[in-house]
Amino acid sequence: MTKIENDRYLRALLRQPVDRTPVWLMRQAGRYLPEYRALRAEAGDFMTLCQNPELACEVTLQPLRRFELDAAILFSDILTIPDAMGLGLSFGAGEGPKFARTIQYQRDVDTLPVPDPEIELRYVMDAVRAIKRALVQRIPLIGFSGSPWTLATYMVEGGSSKQFSRIKQMMYREPQLLHGLLQKLADSVTLYLNAQIAAGADAVMIFDTWGGVLSHQDYQTFSLQYMTQIVQGISRQHEGRTIPVTLFTKGGGQWLELIAASGCDAIGLDWTTDIASARQRIGDKVALQGNMDPAVLHGDDAVVISHVQQILQQYGSGSGHVFNLGHGITPDIAPERVKTFVDAVHHFSEAYHQS
Amino acid sequence: MTKIENDRYLRALLRQPVDRTPVWLMRQAGRYLPEYRALRAEAGDFMTLCQNPELACEVTLQPLRRFELDAAILFSDILTIPDAMGLGLSFGAGEGPKFARTIQYQRDVDTLPVPDPEIELRYVMDAVRAIKRALVQRIPLIGFSGSPWTLATYMVEGGSSKQFSRIKQMMYREPQLLHGLLQKLADSVTLYLNAQIAAGADAVMIFDTWGGVLSHQDYQTFSLQYMTQIVQGISRQHEGRTIPVTLFTKGGGQWLELIAASGCDAIGLDWTTDIASARQRIGDKVALQGNMDPAVLHGDDAVVISHVQQILQQYGSGSGHVFNLGHGITPDIAPERVKTFVDAVHHFSEAYHQS
Repeated sequence: MTKIENDRYLRALLRQPVDRTPVWLMRQAGRYLPEYRALRAEAGDFMTLCQNPELACEVTLQPLRRFELDAAILFSDILTIPDAMGLGLSFGAGEGPKFARTIQYQRDVDTLPVPDPEIELRYVMDAVRAIKRALVQRIPLIGFSGSPWTLATYMVEGGSSKQFSRIKQMMYREPQLLHGLLQKLADSVTLYLNAQIAAGADAVMIFDTWGGVLSHQDYQTFSLQYMTQIVQGISRQHEGRTIPVTLFTKGGGQWLELIAASGCDAIGLDWTTDIASARQRIGDKVALQGNMDPAVLHGDDAVVISHVQQILQQYGSGSGHVFNLGHGITPDIAPERVKTFVDAVHHFSEAYHQS
Repeated sequence: MTKIENDRYLRALLRQPVDRTPVWLMRQAGRYLPEYRALRAEAGDFMTLCQNPELACEVTLQPLRRFELDAAILFSDILTIPDAMGLGLSFGAGEGPKFARTIQYQRDVDTLPVPDPEIELRYVMDAVRAIKRALVQRIPLIGFSGSPWTLATYMVEGGSSKQFSRIKQMMYREPQLLHGLLQKLADSVTLYLNAQIAAGADAVMIFDTWGGVLSHQDYQTFSLQYMTQIVQGISRQHEGRTIPVTLFTKGGGQWLELIAASGCDAIGLDWTTDIASARQRIGDKVALQGNMDPAVLHGDDAVVISHVQQILQQYGSGSGHVFNLGHGITPDIAPERVKTFVDAVHHFSEAYHQS
């Protein structure tokens, strides 16, 4: 396969020199784009978009037509694996995800299958292949999965949660039951990400959306341990390409040293972390992704530009930084602000990459 | 006034020697207690309980009859100040707080009164006096308030929020409007806490429930700056007593050094922070309160005891630790677990206080 034309994103993750800081946005294909809302209205619901490779490909490409993004990310959901395990995922109108069945007892875990990605999750792999073809090696494609802990929260709670009281009850009353579930999920995620890589993903990212609700000790035992297993199981060398792995724990700013020790290539930072201190703490071990508060995009162009400049300056000179928001872009943002954001990162970062 | 019989809590906050680690629980007077639920059912709703000094006193005393707690905390709500400012607070059944009016424009801020605590918040001061009499100097009484930032989130959003998009829009579009609101709140909170001290509170605590949704920089500008003003405005010496001040920012574990520099006596830690590292970082400047995950109380006695032992061991020898949960106790906890928790703290902490 030919080399990727713009490989800034991959080079920055591997801390190799770049001409500008690469930038993409979590949820860059999403509801803030009118063309996305139109396609979704036509498709009917969110899972139909995800499960139709042609539509998933089209949605993935939409933001790339508007903005000079340095990476595409597979359009999918973090909950595809539990759905493929048979839990029955649905999205009510205006609500979060819901599962028809939940995990409560040992037999629920015992009977849970480890999905074969090319069979039960074929639609995801077909989407990866379609997107990869459509990108014609212009920019890299990011594959992703939810972390075992994050997937388990939804599977045990039955949907989104505020207190996480069911899974925490399991954690403190029946830790071995929870470990059994997490192990099955870690095995499934490893297979899933490797299948995405085989289908064409150039980098992978693990979203640990709910790791931040755990204590310092429980985070290591119930979340990081399983992400580390996955990092070690991923095909990091694939057909002559090096596949970088990024771990993102929302609310994980206190644990960066521990996350870096997992063997990952990069850590995603939410907006609560000072990226200058983060680089001091671990910037010689891994690359950093982030970390503007998504709400800054509510400001005018001058506000967006000044926040971009501030974060570039805090990170400082040299490679190892992938610019992003600290969390997904929200539906109420004007696309024009995103253009300002992306262009500002490219424009103002040049000065930090002169050798 | 005679000396307080058990002043462990106050001594630990001032880092003076104690015989055992003092312990209390955030929301110790609350729905997990059947006697609380009975009284609340009788009173009709939550605000009636808060606004009736006799009932507020009774509710405050309920947990003290069951457990050997080292402090009582005023039964009240963090939203009394915005309610006294005229925003019309109500609690729907099973819902969070709601305000009839919200803050959107400059004129909303300009016309907002700074309440006189002995007039518009007289019911709180009467409750403090009633509780203080009922405690007959057995243990200290904690007064409290929400932080300006936290109060502002409810006043701008109109209630609880997930994304905080209204107040963040204000922050990034009209920062001076928000600063005007926060200044009025800081002035009001200072008067309110000083009035609680004059009415008998032996220590005060500021709850910054939502500081953790801010970026590193915005936290300092929009939350900590105003808490620092309050700390400096509090009557720390009152009629021969030293009044310790505790600041608690949920999700503030990355900012402990900054919080300690406010001049407070103690920092409340949520359960995501490793208390051993926290003590290394700032334990020579301030006392630490916390920080067991409230969900540990779902475990059996052995689980509760082992977590208590672990946190005591992590903090280590000497004074400066007030044991607590990392957040409020939830309604689904059995009171028996709380007894185990409180007794375990006293029993196992003795060894850490032998000089």
